[in-house]
Amino acid sequence: MNIAILGYGTVGSGVALIIEQAHTPFTKKLHVKHILIRKGKNKILSTMCDDIHTILNDKDCDTVVETMGGIEPAHTYILQALKSGKHVVTANKAVVAKYLQEFIECAKENHVKFYFEATTGGGIPWIEGLDKAMRIDEIDHIYGIFNGTSNYILDHMERYNADFDKILKEAQSLGYAEADPSADIDGFDIRNKLRISASLAYAFHVPEDFPVYGIRTITKQDITYFKHLGYHIRLVAKTKRQGNKYGCVVEPVLFPQNEIESNTKNNYNVITLHGKTIGDLKFYGQGAGKLPTANAIVQDMIDINENTTRFETSFTNQMHYDKSLCLCDYIVRTSTKAFGAFSDCSYTLDTYQGCEYLHIKKVAVYLMHQYMREVMKTDPNAFMASIFEGENDD
Amino acid sequence: MNIAILGYGTVGSGVALIIEQAHTPFTKKLHVKHILIRKGKNKILSTMCDDIHTILNDKDCDTVVETMGGIEPAHTYILQALKSGKHVVTANKAVVAKYLQEFIECAKENHVKFYFEATTGGGIPWIEGLDKAMRIDEIDHIYGIFNGTSNYILDHMERYNADFDKILKEAQSLGYAEADPSADIDGFDIRNKLRISASLAYAFHVPEDFPVYGIRTITKQDITYFKHLGYHIRLVAKTKRQGNKYGCVVEPVLFPQNEIESNTKNNYNVITLHGKTIGDLKFYGQGAGKLPTANAIVQDMIDINENTTRFETSFTNQMHYDKSLCLCDYIVRTSTKAFGAFSDCSYTLDTYQGCEYLHIKKVAVYLMHQYMREVMKTDPNAFMASIFEGENDD
Repeated sequence: MNIAILGYGTVGSGVALIIEQAHTPFTKKLHVKHILIRKGKNKILSTMCDDIHTILNDKDCDTVVETMGGIEPAHTYILQALKSGKHVVTANKAVVAKYLQEFIECAKENHVKFYFEATTGGGIPWIEGLDKAMRIDEIDHIYGIFNGTSNYILDHMERYNADFDKILKEAQSLGYAEADPSADIDGFDIRNKLRISASLAYAFHVPEDFPVYGIRTITKQDITYFKHLGYHIRLVAKTKRQGNKYGCVVEPVLFPQNEIESNTKNNYNVITLHGKTIGDLKFYGQGAGKLPTANAIVQDMIDINENTTRFETSFTNQMHYDKSLCLCDYIVRTSTKAFGAFSDCSYTLDTYQGCEYLHIKKVAVYLMHQYMREVMKTDPNAFMASIFEGENDD
Repeated sequence: MNIAILGYGTVGSGVALIIEQAHTPFTKKLHVKHILIRKGKNKILSTMCDDIHTILNDKDCDTVVETMGGIEPAHTYILQALKSGKHVVTANKAVVAKYLQEFIECAKENHVKFYFEATTGGGIPWIEGLDKAMRIDEIDHIYGIFNGTSNYILDHMERYNADFDKILKEAQSLGYAEADPSADIDGFDIRNKLRISASLAYAFHVPEDFPVYGIRTITKQDITYFKHLGYHIRLVAKTKRQGNKYGCVVEPVLFPQNEIESNTKNNYNVITLHGKTIGDLKFYGQGAGKLPTANAIVQDMIDINENTTRFETSFTNQMHYDKSLCLCDYIVRTSTKAFGAFSDCSYTLDTYQGCEYLHIKKVAVYLMHQYMREVMKTDPNAFMASIFEGENDD
């Protein structure tokens, strides 16, 4: 298999490194022929080029690995590669969440493969696990910690009783968080990953307009309060279906101490699916990082090269977002003057170290996020989290 | 695909049920043609027969699912089926642990598949996950909770401060434990699963003569003591390799509260592998039960029917059991008169509610099990557990 890698950043160079250093019967068959770098950059390797057409026109190059990130030119290059009869493997969640259906249909038309394991859960074989489970079960529930950066921040704030800003800076200096951390801490990265997962599970390209609430306003004291109640907080994406109705949300969730999620530390991810015959399956591992993400890309390439049959997603379902499908209990920290937003809810009030926390019972997730948008207008430092509804597994 | 199911107990009937009730494009292609039952039993279904030759001689039947359990006649029937050019899928860990190499080599010679996902970790896609990880990484470490019954017992003793015998009876009445629970609580079931996993990871059919210590002698008070030290106890199988040296052991392990294993409840399993580029991957789910186990069998059949390429294990390595590769800290409860067995070790003594517990530092696993065999001769109620050595993931 002759490969072209688009982009030579952390993940792209990780792919080249694994192909060079892993000497298994499978990796030995992979050969990096081209590396596309930006125009004007130094071509330090003989395989480097700066024109996508060098790759598109090379009939001997059968697989393109896209690790550039962002929407354009990634979207255009992926389509061009598929139309040139090349398989495409990508780690780019933003472009896949947006164009999943177009890419999959284009790949089918051109009799090539489009694989994207590395977009969701880094090195965790999640996409394949989900695809496989669907060969037998309808998947009616997916939830999990899909983002290493936000998990690192919450876990370390908890463990070291530290402020958000201090841990964010630490995560940035370790390379876990970007200079602009918005995608990670405001939940947009996770939204993309949930959208990809739910679209596969529901055979329907899920639109992105579901509620998303991040962790930007969480304080050290919130965490102490949640701990005092026996909870650990994690930023979670979840989706549920019932027939052709579904709900999706990204929000902070409070888990009891003895749940797997409460004990998912540092930048690890854990993703759960539920199906009728398989029950709960959880996949745990490194959700980001050079080698784990590159590992997922190389696994996709091996599947293509070995001609491994995988579940072929089609988008034949018509699903409807149901605003009342998901109900949760919530805890909200806000100032007294914002309480009016919750006048339609049933709640109790708790005061902890001078802060007021509302405990709200069984409210529709969609409504709750609407209320919080109102609250944030008058109290931009407010924070909310839902309470995990465990299966009754005793 | 025309299937013959050998045995119609919990798992065999679960396979038939999934094929009947799951209506996916994959399961629709599976057709149960024969069910082998014991001679003299009532043939309540038209597909039932009591002579293996009916199946072996049926050229239209391409796949045999063995769910009888035990060594014979399972071993003979599996070989006969493979030699008749039929694929074989099995859930029988005892026969696979013992004859793995023979079965795989026989399948290769006859150009058919031999798959056994359901032997290890029930519905968890563990064998496939391990196979897949090995396409890139050498797997140098595997450990986990491989047995639902023992996990149910330990978790419930802990949670309800209950005696071993009471919870064992409860597990038996729920169908989680056999009338003769020895295989589960003495660690032999887990030994088979570790042997299968390690043999795949090391490309070497690992012999069964590694140390195994179960949970038969654990008391309510031991659990209270471990809790007081901050530990949860789980029955664990683990293996480690370094070059062509390896170690394997089954023993009770003490995990700190915030480890995933400590929070693996009821009859769930969690299995971890470690590889150079992928790091730690954990697979969590129902390690036993009618539908999860049947799900794993149906997945194997779908892989065969879809002609999915999987990693082909060969047994080309020459590995050596290294007695000094694994060192652990241990806690032992025994009577003063048995202390002499540990005279070569460095230990401290702790007394808790009238019981004496030795804390032993860094002793070779192999030696420790030897010492305990001595101790059990004079104190048959003694108990030991090792202390989990976590990765330093902070």
